[in-house]
Amino acid sequence: MNPVADKPELAEPYMFAWLASLGLGVEYTRSKKDSLYYRDAGGAEIEVLDLVGGYGSTILGHNNPELIEYTKSLLDSDTPIHAQFSRHPYANNLAWTLNTIAHREFDTDENYAVIFANSGAEANEVAIKHAEMDRMLKIGEALAEVEAHIEAAVAAVASGATVDASPLRGSDIDEVVAALRAANAERAATPPVYLAPVGSFHGKLAGTIQLTHNFAYRTPFIAMAAQCRFVPLDQPDVISDAIAAESRTLFDLAVDGDAIRVVERPLPVISAFVLEPIQGEAGIRILDAGAVARLRELLDAADIPVIVDEVQSGMGRSGAFFAASHLGLRGDYITLAKSLGGGIAKAAVTLIRSSRYRADFELVHTSTFAKDSLSTLIALRAVELLEADGGAVYRLAAQRGDKLLAMLRALRDEFGDVVKDVRGKGLMVGLEFHDLSGSASEILAEQARGGLIGYMFSGYLLREHNMRVFPTASATSTLRFEPSVYITDEEITRTEKGLRALITLIRAEDGKTLLG
Amino acid sequence: MNPVADKPELAEPYMFAWLASLGLGVEYTRSKKDSLYYRDAGGAEIEVLDLVGGYGSTILGHNNPELIEYTKSLLDSDTPIHAQFSRHPYANNLAWTLNTIAHREFDTDENYAVIFANSGAEANEVAIKHAEMDRMLKIGEALAEVEAHIEAAVAAVASGATVDASPLRGSDIDEVVAALRAANAERAATPPVYLAPVGSFHGKLAGTIQLTHNFAYRTPFIAMAAQCRFVPLDQPDVISDAIAAESRTLFDLAVDGDAIRVVERPLPVISAFVLEPIQGEAGIRILDAGAVARLRELLDAADIPVIVDEVQSGMGRSGAFFAASHLGLRGDYITLAKSLGGGIAKAAVTLIRSSRYRADFELVHTSTFAKDSLSTLIALRAVELLEADGGAVYRLAAQRGDKLLAMLRALRDEFGDVVKDVRGKGLMVGLEFHDLSGSASEILAEQARGGLIGYMFSGYLLREHNMRVFPTASATSTLRFEPSVYITDEEITRTEKGLRALITLIRAEDGKTLLG
Repeated sequence: MNPVADKPELAEPYMFAWLASLGLGVEYTRSKKDSLYYRDAGGAEIEVLDLVGGYGSTILGHNNPELIEYTKSLLDSDTPIHAQFSRHPYANNLAWTLNTIAHREFDTDENYAVIFANSGAEANEVAIKHAEMDRMLKIGEALAEVEAHIEAAVAAVASGATVDASPLRGSDIDEVVAALRAANAERAATPPVYLAPVGSFHGKLAGTIQLTHNFAYRTPFIAMAAQCRFVPLDQPDVISDAIAAESRTLFDLAVDGDAIRVVERPLPVISAFVLEPIQGEAGIRILDAGAVARLRELLDAADIPVIVDEVQSGMGRSGAFFAASHLGLRGDYITLAKSLGGGIAKAAVTLIRSSRYRADFELVHTSTFAKDSLSTLIALRAVELLEADGGAVYRLAAQRGDKLLAMLRALRDEFGDVVKDVRGKGLMVGLEFHDLSGSASEILAEQARGGLIGYMFSGYLLREHNMRVFPTASATSTLRFEPSVYITDEEITRTEKGLRALITLIRAEDGKTLLG
Repeated sequence: MNPVADKPELAEPYMFAWLASLGLGVEYTRSKKDSLYYRDAGGAEIEVLDLVGGYGSTILGHNNPELIEYTKSLLDSDTPIHAQFSRHPYANNLAWTLNTIAHREFDTDENYAVIFANSGAEANEVAIKHAEMDRMLKIGEALAEVEAHIEAAVAAVASGATVDASPLRGSDIDEVVAALRAANAERAATPPVYLAPVGSFHGKLAGTIQLTHNFAYRTPFIAMAAQCRFVPLDQPDVISDAIAAESRTLFDLAVDGDAIRVVERPLPVISAFVLEPIQGEAGIRILDAGAVARLRELLDAADIPVIVDEVQSGMGRSGAFFAASHLGLRGDYITLAKSLGGGIAKAAVTLIRSSRYRADFELVHTSTFAKDSLSTLIALRAVELLEADGGAVYRLAAQRGDKLLAMLRALRDEFGDVVKDVRGKGLMVGLEFHDLSGSASEILAEQARGGLIGYMFSGYLLREHNMRVFPTASATSTLRFEPSVYITDEEITRTEKGLRALITLIRAEDGKTLLG
């Protein structure tokens, strides 16, 4: 098949044109560590410092040599990639390795069962599917208890008890039971509701897109699936109100001596609270530990499980394997992807606490591509590299992250009129610019109002400084920095140089040079 | 990290125990072509003839040597796996190669835009998300037209026209408009409905699970997302009735001289009709070309797009690249996965006809792992291998499939009391057993009633004949046969021998030997 350089773009054509318009339509030809390479018009190879890191997928660098060699050795040994419905000891090794880490970081000996998936969004779908199955089973268990109470009530009536139909209708027990069952059937079908903090991002499949706060991403698909209520984490009253607003009941019967009364019992409606310990796409925002502790109390009181999405923050990026460990938050569910694939494979897992785990889930959820030997073994090796030498990589992530943060904070101190905030932990760092929608530069103002100004900055940095930096997806005036743990002092200095030039042009409101 | 052989299973533990109980808990250590290998208790390597083929993922065999070498060469060249938001010419090459095939097989020159994903279920989610965005945009366009008509009506009233509020309420134009807008806002929020043939299987994510007919898979998640109506394809009246039952309207205003009337206009509710040209998990069932042609007419009349799920049937398995080409069915959407990954990578795509394509979709749908160089280049090479030598692989699939089918049909003819039916096209073949729930063997009757008898047969064939055969997921008395195009005459003879022994034991109602 010949290349199709002369043919119009059919692979996501709109994106292609948009990237080209911003000077981002570069074809990279290889990558290593924190660098991507392209060839210029003359054929010379140009190195680009990559601070995007595959949106968090390359904590161990692009094409990590050990992982590349290991992957090749797996291919050389004809690893049985497609062996569904057989014994996968390597999958159990990965499950135990992750559990060992969870036991250590959350100071617990409770295990998590592990379900395998192919992307972060899929891992989150697994979590919400399991939470929903658990909710439906609880409703089923409640309805079975109601049926037992109905049986007792009918027996009591046969022995002379009387029935008060209120608030239902009916003049005898049969009519009351019929009304109660009809009302309960309708109530039991109430769709689940999710709760999530303002700013959440959990993927873009039909279910998970509803948990993604960004209105532009979510709106076209809002009628497809159960909805999420977004709450401000620092306002516990609002969270309590949201929980109260979704509280529903089932009818039940209580036999009280000779009197049978219709009573109400809770119907679980809120399926789960879903959060990222460090919100990525909202602009790199670390959740507040105190707010999370108060949240956990509220949720425990209402028996609402917590899904902790560590797709971006996990795998050591924060300086610990699980970013939630900094918050003291042991999730009922934990999801991992991105760097779990070692920058090579598509690996994702969902961890589910044993005390919440419904084993039947495995009978109703499978995936052809998941749990394959290739991606699972690469994931295991990637986790082992993180755990090696007593967690040297975690210390490196913390130390490199501190260095990067210190540099960015110095820029903020020096250019407080341009740089609004610098946030982050370990190698998950964001630099937020002040709003430019009122800029005297028409170019800057227009880009800011269009919500895409960060991509214009990306184009400038790539063009003029051979640096790859992108904004966060839902907060495009924040640039994200998620390099590998191997980023050098020299590369941090190079980053500073590029940012300093960018900031100087922003301060000068030189939209023309920035747009290129 | 040490192996955890002494620790309980945490990686999908329930499945592990269930497989072990059926004798399916074998650990495979390598695979090649149509064989998986394990080591017995004494350490000797045992070859197993694999007729499952990764549920359709290995049309080119396990660990295809050319694809393995190619993958290694990509890894050796430090291919830029994670280079999101850049130019991906190889993705466009794949898109054009798929389009060239579509043009040939569907005799059209209309292009498909291509969106990338990580699994078959994700590709189907992309299709239903796009269809829903299209539906929402159409509703938005209709509401904008209604607003223009309102403006015209208000102007007409100012010039003396009168308004008939019926069937809404209101004594003047302002009240009528307010009632109309309120009613339309409620109607516009009607959730989408999907249609699919009885027996459909389209994956297990929150959205796609609703399109999967199997009640057991779907029920726990039924409250999570928009619902599907399952229709019998051979009953066009039922399909028409289903379309009619979902027909809804929006209110509009019509200015007719001096009279303004409230009229109704169609509201699109059915988002898409979703089908597999050869239903896989329903027991390998080829759709009827006549029924599909009648279906297409009905759907075109109602402007309902068709999503053709070729995740299992595509990639040459049927003897053509697209199984739908045998039916003369050019989908509005086509999804591919499984063998698109060449048995190595996790690759999936959604093709969307240019005439239906909404370019803005690319702004609201992305995936970190999708469109990576590694899986996309492997997919391109896999498609190239299919297309090589004027489509030699397609001819091989047809010829090998005919040979396999002939053998199975001879068994059906010989053992008509045991074998109910043999179906298939190319290398997508099923053998259905008669129902055994009334068997004199308590073991057989119990397994049949439990819906898992096919897995018991799988255990027997693996244990006694070193053959790997599984039932289809939603019809477990049908065994599936989806080997690679490289299956030999000798392997087909070996398959016959194993099946003959199985059938003989079933005929003898020897449940004990089958259970092992």
